[in-house]
Amino acid sequence: MGKLLGKDLICTQEWSKEDLDRIFKLAFEMKQDRFGEKYLNILYRKQFFMFFFNPSVRTRQSFEAASTELGAHAQFLEPKAMRLKTAKSAGETIEDAAQVMDRYAYGLGIRMLENKVTYYGEGDSLIREYAKYTKMPIISMAHDKFHPCQGVADIMGWIEWLAEAGKQKTGSLATEFDSDGLVGKKLLITWSQGALCRSLCSVQEAALLAGRYGMDVTIAHPEGYEFDPDVIKATRENCEARGQEFTVTQDPEAGYEGAHVVYSRNWMSSEAYQDGELKKEEEIAKAQKYTDWTCTAARMKRTDNGIFTHPMPIDRGAEVEDAVASGPNSCIFDVAENRLHGQKAIMAATMAGFLD
Amino acid sequence: MGKLLGKDLICTQEWSKEDLDRIFKLAFEMKQDRFGEKYLNILYRKQFFMFFFNPSVRTRQSFEAASTELGAHAQFLEPKAMRLKTAKSAGETIEDAAQVMDRYAYGLGIRMLENKVTYYGEGDSLIREYAKYTKMPIISMAHDKFHPCQGVADIMGWIEWLAEAGKQKTGSLATEFDSDGLVGKKLLITWSQGALCRSLCSVQEAALLAGRYGMDVTIAHPEGYEFDPDVIKATRENCEARGQEFTVTQDPEAGYEGAHVVYSRNWMSSEAYQDGELKKEEEIAKAQKYTDWTCTAARMKRTDNGIFTHPMPIDRGAEVEDAVASGPNSCIFDVAENRLHGQKAIMAATMAGFLD
Amino acid sequence: MGKLLGKDLICTQEWSKEDLDRIFKLAFEMKQDRFGEKYLNILYRKQFFMFFFNPSVRTRQSFEAASTELGAHAQFLEPKAMRLKTAKSAGETIEDAAQVMDRYAYGLGIRMLENKVTYYGEGDSLIREYAKYTKMPIISMAHDKFHPCQGVADIMGWIEWLAEAGKQKTGSLATEFDSDGLVGKKLLITWSQGALCRSLCSVQEAALLAGRYGMDVTIAHPEGYEFDPDVIKATRENCEARGQEFTVTQDPEAGYEGAHVVYSRNWMSSEAYQDGELKKEEEIAKAQKYTDWTCTAARMKRTDNGIFTHPMPIDRGAEVEDAVASGPNSCIFDVAENRLHGQKAIMAATMAGFLD
Repeated sequence: MGKLLGKDLICTQEWSKEDLDRIFKLAFEMKQDRFGEKYLNILYRKQFFMFFFNPSVRTRQSFEAASTELGAHAQFLEPKAMRLKTAKSAGETIEDAAQVMDRYAYGLGIRMLENKVTYYGEGDSLIREYAKYTKMPIISMAHDKFHPCQGVADIMGWIEWLAEAGKQKTGSLATEFDSDGLVGKKLLITWSQGALCRSLCSVQEAALLAGRYGMDVTIAHPEGYEFDPDVIKATRENCEARGQEFTVTQDPEAGYEGAHVVYSRNWMSSEAYQDGELKKEEEIAKAQKYTDWTCTAARMKRTDNGIFTHPMPIDRGAEVEDAVASGPNSCIFDVAENRLHGQKAIMAATMAGFLD
Repeated sequence: MGKLLGKDLICTQEWSKEDLDRIFKLAFEMKQDRFGEKYLNILYRKQFFMFFFNPSVRTRQSFEAASTELGAHAQFLEPKAMRLKTAKSAGETIEDAAQVMDRYAYGLGIRMLENKVTYYGEGDSLIREYAKYTKMPIISMAHDKFHPCQGVADIMGWIEWLAEAGKQKTGSLATEFDSDGLVGKKLLITWSQGALCRSLCSVQEAALLAGRYGMDVTIAHPEGYEFDPDVIKATRENCEARGQEFTVTQDPEAGYEGAHVVYSRNWMSSEAYQDGELKKEEEIAKAQKYTDWTCTAARMKRTDNGIFTHPMPIDRGAEVEDAVASGPNSCIFDVAENRLHGQKAIMAATMAGFLD
Repeated sequence: MGKLLGKDLICTQEWSKEDLDRIFKLAFEMKQDRFGEKYLNILYRKQFFMFFFNPSVRTRQSFEAASTELGAHAQFLEPKAMRLKTAKSAGETIEDAAQVMDRYAYGLGIRMLENKVTYYGEGDSLIREYAKYTKMPIISMAHDKFHPCQGVADIMGWIEWLAEAGKQKTGSLATEFDSDGLVGKKLLITWSQGALCRSLCSVQEAALLAGRYGMDVTIAHPEGYEFDPDVIKATRENCEARGQEFTVTQDPEAGYEGAHVVYSRNWMSSEAYQDGELKKEEEIAKAQKYTDWTCTAARMKRTDNGIFTHPMPIDRGAEVEDAVASGPNSCIFDVAENRLHGQKAIMAATMAGFLD
């Protein structure tokens, strides 16, 4: 186990499983005792800086709530007004800006993806440049490659819903961290139609984490919508290390059979960035041609009473049918809630050394 | 008396008078003891979400201050960046967004009126759709039909200023809730010129509440600037139930004679929305023709030492003469301050069950 | 010593040196004990309103952090959305807006300079108009003429770095207020190239304060980049009262010889505002002609082991060479940090009467 105070969280793959286990355990405890005395002042009167290069709903709301609940204050900073150097604009160097912020704040969250980067990986590079110049932890609030906080929330939700078959029907979710319930369970991450042209961060993070936690992972997508090869390689190794299968397929029907978790989501193609620009219109037009790629109630019937998961917002009717998204096996609101608890645990650990 | 925890406040008319009385009583107590120990942690470390589809000065400032003073944190959320479904744009469904927010926050304020709706009543419908999907209370921060928090602040200010004749001259305001001072007092709500093209929410809420609290209500406006017929009907019933007069007139001189409270304000005409759009330019041009509609010092002389009230911002010189707005009988700053205290009471009651 | 509760801080020159000394003393104590119990609740649950007519990085971050650390809440208010009367737009009068804010908040910071004013001095006038209508203190967060909080941070940083020669090399900075170390030390404020077209507020505030604290002050700039004559006059008087030299020169080489503090920065020319508009493009084009005006490592060698200071953001390569800005004698990050501590002291004194 490493020291977590000051540790950046850019991708869960860079953390040991032991350290992640500690985060999950704390997150479940915090969920059980949301306003417990022992958590209320972990970050008493400290600042958490949030850089939203891209806007967000859940990420903003959950990080700002997490900060309050730990006694901190989240500063909502709009980089566009800050004359900071970014992928797309000149301005104050990251070296200068980051070193000043390190004097004021105890943690810095950064969101940079989609149309705010000019090529896949640029957001990741920028986040790492901030990390280079700060002693405080840098936490990805979603970037072009990874979305560690979403990954943590996903795993928490799946543990809760798969803990004991059928429990979800009664609303009685698992109340403590025990990841054994995930071992050998089948996860299907399947591309779907959708007009949102999203980055791969959430699905890539989910694949990596699922592999590490012993799930059988299938990734399905049309040709041209491949994951980052490095992520594929790491996910395969993660699965193999746990003795699980890892499959990549271009068949929209594949993976549903016997699946326990179905993660149906749109993401951009490998050709999305051209000449330093996200070709959003072209991407949306192209995606809409794959009419057979959607998560239907009929397909869900072939699963093993599988749950539907999604990081939201959902493009209903395209990514998934309403009957599935609003159905009894949809864990989306619990996963969304887990953003809060997971992030509280991450902030407590990295910004205050609560687990050291 | 009903349970107030989780109760939405979209219009005061939907609350029992007993419940409103309890809010007024608490609001006056909170005003007397602004940082009293017993109020400081009513919403300790909780989130209040503020959705400002339309910007605001007093509403933002007073709700954010109210949140702090109760131990909560107000999140200033800009729906335009949130890809939410609104009257004017597609995006994430309210069903999805609201159910997630319900996991993070303990109350949600929504402001939607004027140019952010496409027809009168659309803001009201949208607020009620949020209310449908949340367990936490929805509080209108002003919408096209009603403005309950302004109404509460108005009544508080009028109670203070009318409590004992002449007391306002010494700055010694009433210090506890006693609405008997309003019974039989004459309220004139009069349309006025002005270039702001405001929604009817404030004046409609004031008319409804004044009737319930036993005031004699006169509404004066040029032809074409009628109130919502449902509001007229309810106000008439409110007045009749208290044995008071209710008058609607198109005479700009009417209602001043013997008035105790004069509320002079511009509002949009019944033709303001055309083809799904607020015709602001046309409205302003039309309003400026009614040069005889303004609250002058000369007219105020005909009142019974009447006070001038307005929810602000004031279009000075159009809605009212400076001599009146800045005169000794202007209660505008006390009413504005009451926004804070009234909202603290409402939030404490609906978000924490402080009065249950 | 005067009473500081409610006292505006628009320029340090308007405060007695005794009162400034008290601020510096408190600021150093607060820096030594950042989360000390006795400071944490000075502004418990109070509001500090921040009006950013112009955006900012450090000012926003440090004021918002200062508020949190004193138990207050900083409201980030965007005047552009508030329909307030400003130099460039009609709207609600300051008389009305200010008197309402006085009911909600305990302090108001205002930032207005550069392209948000139409002539030099207009920001100063607007701030003073707010001050006229409020009982709460108005704190300049930088305006066209002055930047008192930057001045306080500068002096703190110079005291720390000049306290004992060479101490900066070990990172062991002065830990209490003793301004004797500044007496007789040579300060060079030199104009430099740069594409930012900044207001004179920071350099003018620094010159005034340095004179009062006994420094020998040299101001160097090309013809046409003169300081405000009133500031020149006051700085000369400040220096003479302490028996120190005050020099104004148009020689880019001047002032480095034996200097202890070099403050190299771009600022706009006396012709920057034309016809009610900041001619930014023309200013930048003009400034770039003065290629000899930059702070080089070679020039710094002629100083007395002088430190480099700057309020940031730095236009590296234009205002100063990287070797200087990132060199061992650069105090920029400590000065930036001092914004936080200085502002905490100012807020505690003026908003809560902590020193009265």
